[in-house]
Amino acid sequence: SMNPDLTSERQTASFSVEKLTALLDGGAEQTRIRRAVVEAIESDPVFSRENQYFQTQNERYEAAVRKAVHLQKKMHEMGWTENGPEYKYIYRALSGDVAFLLHRVFMRSISVLGSDKQIAKWIPLATQHKLIGSYAQTELGHGTYLQGLETTAVFDTATQAFILNTPKISAMKWWPGDMGRSATHTVVFAQLYVHGKCYGIHPFIVQIRSLQDHSLCPGITAGDIGPKMNFEHIDNGYLLLKNVRIPRENMLSKFCEVRPDGTYVRQGSQKINYFTMTTVRISLISDEVLTPLMKACTIAIRYSVVRRQSKLKPGEQEAKILDYQTQQEKLLPQLAAAYAFHFINDYLQELFNRGYREIQRKNFDMLPELHALSSGFKAMITQHCTAGVEICLRACGGHGYSLLSGLPSLYTKILASCIYEGENTILLLQTARFLIKCFMAASAGQPVPPSVTYLAAVKPGKCSAKNKLDFLSPDIYTEAYQHVAVRLTSSTAAKLQDLIQSGVKKHDAWNQCTVQLVQAAKAHCHYIAVKNFAETVEKLETKAGIQKIMKHLCDLFAVHGIFSNTGAFLYDGYTSAAQMDMVTASYLDLLAVTRKDAVPLVDAFDFTDKSLNSALGSYDGQVYQRLYEWAQKSPTNQMSPAYERYLKPLLHNTLSKL
Amino acid sequence: SMNPDLTSERQTASFSVEKLTALLDGGAEQTRIRRAVVEAIESDPVFSRENQYFQTQNERYEAAVRKAVHLQKKMHEMGWTENGPEYKYIYRALSGDVAFLLHRVFMRSISVLGSDKQIAKWIPLATQHKLIGSYAQTELGHGTYLQGLETTAVFDTATQAFILNTPKISAMKWWPGDMGRSATHTVVFAQLYVHGKCYGIHPFIVQIRSLQDHSLCPGITAGDIGPKMNFEHIDNGYLLLKNVRIPRENMLSKFCEVRPDGTYVRQGSQKINYFTMTTVRISLISDEVLTPLMKACTIAIRYSVVRRQSKLKPGEQEAKILDYQTQQEKLLPQLAAAYAFHFINDYLQELFNRGYREIQRKNFDMLPELHALSSGFKAMITQHCTAGVEICLRACGGHGYSLLSGLPSLYTKILASCIYEGENTILLLQTARFLIKCFMAASAGQPVPPSVTYLAAVKPGKCSAKNKLDFLSPDIYTEAYQHVAVRLTSSTAAKLQDLIQSGVKKHDAWNQCTVQLVQAAKAHCHYIAVKNFAETVEKLETKAGIQKIMKHLCDLFAVHGIFSNTGAFLYDGYTSAAQMDMVTASYLDLLAVTRKDAVPLVDAFDFTDKSLNSALGSYDGQVYQRLYEWAQKSPTNQMSPAYERYLKPLLHNTLSKL
Repeated sequence: SMNPDLTSERQTASFSVEKLTALLDGGAEQTRIRRAVVEAIESDPVFSRENQYFQTQNERYEAAVRKAVHLQKKMHEMGWTENGPEYKYIYRALSGDVAFLLHRVFMRSISVLGSDKQIAKWIPLATQHKLIGSYAQTELGHGTYLQGLETTAVFDTATQAFILNTPKISAMKWWPGDMGRSATHTVVFAQLYVHGKCYGIHPFIVQIRSLQDHSLCPGITAGDIGPKMNFEHIDNGYLLLKNVRIPRENMLSKFCEVRPDGTYVRQGSQKINYFTMTTVRISLISDEVLTPLMKACTIAIRYSVVRRQSKLKPGEQEAKILDYQTQQEKLLPQLAAAYAFHFINDYLQELFNRGYREIQRKNFDMLPELHALSSGFKAMITQHCTAGVEICLRACGGHGYSLLSGLPSLYTKILASCIYEGENTILLLQTARFLIKCFMAASAGQPVPPSVTYLAAVKPGKCSAKNKLDFLSPDIYTEAYQHVAVRLTSSTAAKLQDLIQSGVKKHDAWNQCTVQLVQAAKAHCHYIAVKNFAETVEKLETKAGIQKIMKHLCDLFAVHGIFSNTGAFLYDGYTSAAQMDMVTASYLDLLAVTRKDAVPLVDAFDFTDKSLNSALGSYDGQVYQRLYEWAQKSPTNQMSPAYERYLKPLLHNTLSKL
Repeated sequence: SMNPDLTSERQTASFSVEKLTALLDGGAEQTRIRRAVVEAIESDPVFSRENQYFQTQNERYEAAVRKAVHLQKKMHEMGWTENGPEYKYIYRALSGDVAFLLHRVFMRSISVLGSDKQIAKWIPLATQHKLIGSYAQTELGHGTYLQGLETTAVFDTATQAFILNTPKISAMKWWPGDMGRSATHTVVFAQLYVHGKCYGIHPFIVQIRSLQDHSLCPGITAGDIGPKMNFEHIDNGYLLLKNVRIPRENMLSKFCEVRPDGTYVRQGSQKINYFTMTTVRISLISDEVLTPLMKACTIAIRYSVVRRQSKLKPGEQEAKILDYQTQQEKLLPQLAAAYAFHFINDYLQELFNRGYREIQRKNFDMLPELHALSSGFKAMITQHCTAGVEICLRACGGHGYSLLSGLPSLYTKILASCIYEGENTILLLQTARFLIKCFMAASAGQPVPPSVTYLAAVKPGKCSAKNKLDFLSPDIYTEAYQHVAVRLTSSTAAKLQDLIQSGVKKHDAWNQCTVQLVQAAKAHCHYIAVKNFAETVEKLETKAGIQKIMKHLCDLFAVHGIFSNTGAFLYDGYTSAAQMDMVTASYLDLLAVTRKDAVPLVDAFDFTDKSLNSALGSYDGQVYQRLYEWAQKSPTNQMSPAYERYLKPLLHNTLSKL
């Protein structure tokens, strides 16, 4: 039975939910394929996540391995292939709760870094699961700064082998997924030494466990790094190497090779390799970052129309909490951001496809811009979405704090995205470096990449808004964002130059500007996100109410950004106090407008109840029934030995006399 | 052996760490007592938290019960009493990881709400643990709005009993601690009905489990609500009542009584009861909110001087990450906030002691102000500290994400403080209601409580700072905060009046202003926090460098607040763009200055390694060694059945043919 409070929300939708779903999927055919994959996965009990919140780390790991193995069978049964249209939906349908993800990274690294011969040898073995691979880069004492890695690989010409060692504890490999318990092989990144000379970091294929009985190979110490905030299903591992010998052929040698006599040869361009790193950052946005935010919005918004609390009007029944302005303020900007980031993700995907085509034609011109955008948006989107999921969790009060709401696990998982694949602050500084460089070039009249040509158009100007409705004009708000991005970049560039001219060393000057550089990079990404959303809305079909509701969300995303960061717009008088009052008025109006379609807007994300795995977020809104039924299944509802051991003696006063 | 990177940080301390610790404790004698308690608790293996991160919810619960029982013995052995000077340190030394906390609330509610006869009957039983109590207020469908509770208690004159019922699922008691598995009795809040008339919410003592065998009493359904984001050691429970009969004497009747004939009598003033609610909000700040932030700062700052990453200067070794401006920006404002909130906690404690004395003299004049301050500061401090702990966690990169860092559990625990004992948004709106009322009164020339007299002094004015050093002047920044608080309160009051005058109904007008009302309440609390910190610093002894370093932290707290919220200060031209540049310059200078004393400043919090329970935060800074040793003890380093079941058949290609 459907909760009537949810039914009424759906009856007044201003647009076609099904059409919006198709838009998000990239067409109705994609929606069909996605739903077929979800149905096939969710109807198979092996893939069930029902007990997930009750399981220990050990149980989660075992289930993830079982699922990974079963998935091979399932794919065969269903006729799904790695290149088929279904593939990208499988991982999402599993909510990522599956093992052997690093096995794929192992294969990709061999494909990208290996010679043709190495690819021919290892890829079939990996494809047939005759080995399980991992990828061992990060060390206990070293993450971001790859040159700092301490693992060594010394070439021994006599035996034609590399001898790998972990010289001290900070050099232990730490964090690689699938390595703690599953992997038989891994790609180890180590400092290459030949004849006593260091040639820097190189990748080596190392077997770590027996293919017969899974025992650790000689010289290998490995295990699981223990409990984490999430990813209980992954065996993130440690690895210690002691005089581990591997044949010369195991150094991945597409770009660099050590000849039998110890001659070191560098060949080809590694630029394509950097491109791979950038694409990874973009590829994680959809499944690892946007999906959690969309799920959190779905759960929190559905809950907020079935939860009633206090009275808005005397004499009436208690009000839906989503009718409170403060609850709208928490949730609706997150919903708008989810859509904004969905569209920026499309934009980035398209840009990267174009970049890839250029690179295949040996044109690497787009690389710096792609690197700057992928870094900046990875940081901006993970940051916003993580904060958004936390807001959704807290907006559900006590029930949001129960694991059964699904929100804690969404939060603890998305939080990791701020750290992995490049820590966000470091990524933003990469973007800032690009911005400063381009700003200087533009100032000197040199050409700059398309996304930063606006930096050249430094105009003082003022915001031209005359009333609050003007802040629903994309031209007005996009220009405001552009103005702020230019100002922050140019003022920080000026500070940097001043410092250097006053005698401060370049690296010190840079460090002294980093707080402001981060601000500039964020402003740049925010500007592009707003501009892209506005441009996307303009191109949408006007029928079925889609364009109209997307326009409201775009306005909300833009205006909320100004409202939350007024100082940046007020600072140089670009926006006046009176205009800021208009922003506030527009913002509060937009909350009331978008609130009406809040439930249809999350329905359009089209998550099944099983994929939400939440007692608060189900489609029918039967929250309390579900919480109660679920709690009764908890292992904490079995008898505890604590009663006989401690409580009974206490209550019966039979504890050894105090 | 001490990590030399930590040693060098300590050698350059500008102040006496021991003296600062004594200041924080409220005197050297308090420090001595606290350390003695910590030593006694930590040397007892029963209280060990060493395996905490590896334990299941069931194991955590059992350990907490064991500790609670053992604590009785320990207190007897040590000669500690509930009224002794040691008592307040016990819970902190246990890091809250102990059962029966609600037993204390059960006792307090009887003391406050019960008649003398009820106190005489129940308190000795509870003190001797002949029963275990809980406190059942919140329901599955009802939290904040007490009048909305649905549990019923119908008085039956024939049998002189109350008959308690849970009329529907949303009326189930949900969340009470100690109730899921431990409690034998609880105080149930229910709608009282006599002769068909409802008299509203009243408290009733209900036995829920047998004192003989702990089986559920007739008509009782109860259990554990299942997994949560933290508090695994607490058996938060549910309770469903079906025609449960309790004698007339079990309604707590200090203020209200039902006579044998069903006559309802109200007696005495409940005002003191409201005061109890406010004191609970204040009392949780220290242990539940400040301690976690202080621990997180200790862990993150110690880690940030032993972790080296990338090079600040070419040719040198990798830099301590705390030497990066962006890392300073993350951590040092949290450190300053921890001190600011410690001092505001002192201020609130003192105010409440004064309030308590007045109330005992039947003078209730201070109640509204105390309620407004306790609500606002509970919300402000929990919000800031939760965000601060999250920043500390993320500032430690991947290692912060490991449970072994201690940071995830600090975060997931402190997060709950934003929700319990009054959800923060609702509390801020209570403060705002008080502010608006006082502002109107002050505008009409009526007297207002001391903390809000400043609202009467509305002066347009401009910030008088001439250079960046002026922003190290408490007069300058305190006045700026005051100006913003007055402006936000007065403008929102004006909007509210305008709406009402234009015909909008009062409750609708209120709801349309709540986003801005919340801002006003936050600004008010921020102003008082800054003012109090500045006044505290002024009174400190100048020797041993204490005053000087506290002045730096006070400046940092104040200036960081302006830097993070520039719009509020720029809006009406109170602060100019040039002055905001001075703020930025001062802020960045203060980061560099306070960074030098960062380690001594966290050392002064005086946490033992056992109380931090963190592989990253130990006093000796041997981070990598500890992570490795600890990980090896994880249950995930035992053999998993996943190998025989799934991995081996996969690798040996003996899975049933695909």
